[in-house]
Amino acid sequence: MPYAASDTLPLLMSDLIAESKPSDWRPLDPKNTLYLEFGSRRVIIELAPDFAPQHVANVRALARERYWDGLAMVRVDDNYIVQWADPHAENSELARTIRTARETLPAEFDCAIDPDLPFHRLPDNDVYAEVVGFTNGFPIARDEKDGRTWLVNTYGTVGSGRETDIHSGGGKELYSVIGHAPRQLDRNVTAFGRVRLGIEFLSALPRGNCQAGFYQDVDSMLTISSVRLASEVPLAQRTQLEILRTDTALFADIIESRRNRHDAWFYKPAGHIDIGNVPVPVRLVE
Amino acid sequence: MPYAASDTLPLLMSDLIAESKPSDWRPLDPKNTLYLEFGSRRVIIELAPDFAPQHVANVRALARERYWDGLAMVRVDDNYIVQWADPHAENSELARTIRTARETLPAEFDCAIDPDLPFHRLPDNDVYAEVVGFTNGFPIARDEKDGRTWLVNTYGTVGSGRETDIHSGGGKELYSVIGHAPRQLDRNVTAFGRVRLGIEFLSALPRGNCQAGFYQDVDSMLTISSVRLASEVPLAQRTQLEILRTDTALFADIIESRRNRHDAWFYKPAGHIDIGNVPVPVRLVE
Repeated sequence: MPYAASDTLPLLMSDLIAESKPSDWRPLDPKNTLYLEFGSRRVIIELAPDFAPQHVANVRALARERYWDGLAMVRVDDNYIVQWADPHAENSELARTIRTARETLPAEFDCAIDPDLPFHRLPDNDVYAEVVGFTNGFPIARDEKDGRTWLVNTYGTVGSGRETDIHSGGGKELYSVIGHAPRQLDRNVTAFGRVRLGIEFLSALPRGNCQAGFYQDVDSMLTISSVRLASEVPLAQRTQLEILRTDTALFADIIESRRNRHDAWFYKPAGHIDIGNVPVPVRLVE
Repeated sequence: MPYAASDTLPLLMSDLIAESKPSDWRPLDPKNTLYLEFGSRRVIIELAPDFAPQHVANVRALARERYWDGLAMVRVDDNYIVQWADPHAENSELARTIRTARETLPAEFDCAIDPDLPFHRLPDNDVYAEVVGFTNGFPIARDEKDGRTWLVNTYGTVGSGRETDIHSGGGKELYSVIGHAPRQLDRNVTAFGRVRLGIEFLSALPRGNCQAGFYQDVDSMLTISSVRLASEVPLAQRTQLEILRTDTALFADIIESRRNRHDAWFYKPAGHIDIGNVPVPVRLVE
């Protein structure tokens, strides 16, 4: 029980964060940070190479060749996902070509449990998996009998769209969850990251006007200005973001403060928490 | 097991709905239907007097005296809730006065289980409650030891805001959930209904620019045109909406079709479903 919640009086999450030490936080690694930009908005995504290494490598390659610049938000499906991709992907004359990245990749729906990675197990049950918890700030599930693990689909999860063929994804068409955790996607799609800042720029987009939230015509789609790795953006233009470490006693305390809310407003603490309701705090630094 | 799923081959939800009988549906009762309108948009809310009778009665009274007309969306908090209320509620000179309705009401956080109401129990566990399921299209939880039941807070749940005093609500300030089910609100707030159509008009609103999604100034808030009971709207202006009955074998089949998705795209059916992911279909009729 290395990360058990402290047995002192319960505190509010805001109090716990106010009392945090510098070592409770880690900076985002620029190599694993993606800036998705449209208009004046920047959505910051953290990549999870430990869970989908080939997809993360391909997303890095696609960002380096500026694959998504000028492409579009092709789908905004209420209480489900947004997708950004090439609106002309089906039109061989207009479709954007790839220079260095891979067109498709084998599915990375799950991976072997790495005993060297820290794992903070959630104390509550889960409807979909035997075990859920956090590794390096990512909500994950485990099947300990099979020795497999996977990123779960909750609000802010980022992954790669695909066709019916499970190996038809690869990273060209990306999605982010903007609704109630669609856990039925777990192990059906390659998830490889999480929005760490700016999810509200995605979740408040106008919904697509066709079936499943697709837009009817390209003109009504929002255009992507750019998608860049933070490591390829000049230092002065980077957003300096830190994330609360999830391999700490502080994180255990934060989970407990959310399982049983002691804010004055609450009358009956829930006593439980769904993995989709566990916050992983971030902060901007100088 | 009156509503057990059929043991024939699994079907898609769309197939099941296409094969439904007229008796699988019920119309919304105009007395229990609220139209929340802003701009050209209509959000349709079904009231649940079986679960919060005093709040529903007061909301009806407030709608009859047109309490909300010209008031505003005071809060849009990402992945949580929208709230509509009097932006001048704290200013005794500008606050709107009530003519016939009650200012506040005793909390109706839960109620006694009524054995005469149909209950479709979900076959899966729940993180927060011993038992969850559906009564008349409303997702609910039960504590069968205490004999209590309550509407759960999932995407689209509508309820009454309150201050720290649990009896300070009553219906003047309303909320709808627009994010991952905030189940920590269960039994901490009076929920009394559900959005049946148009939730995307709420969930896509620009987020408030202050703490907790509140708007800083009244001018930036979206104005409510009107809130009316359908029974007080001329027949020609009503939206004729039917909801799939949840006390039917068809609903059991639909739940099963969503627990184990057989759409060609799915590779590994989940085998479970969270109550926040169970759809209750609606349809427009002539």
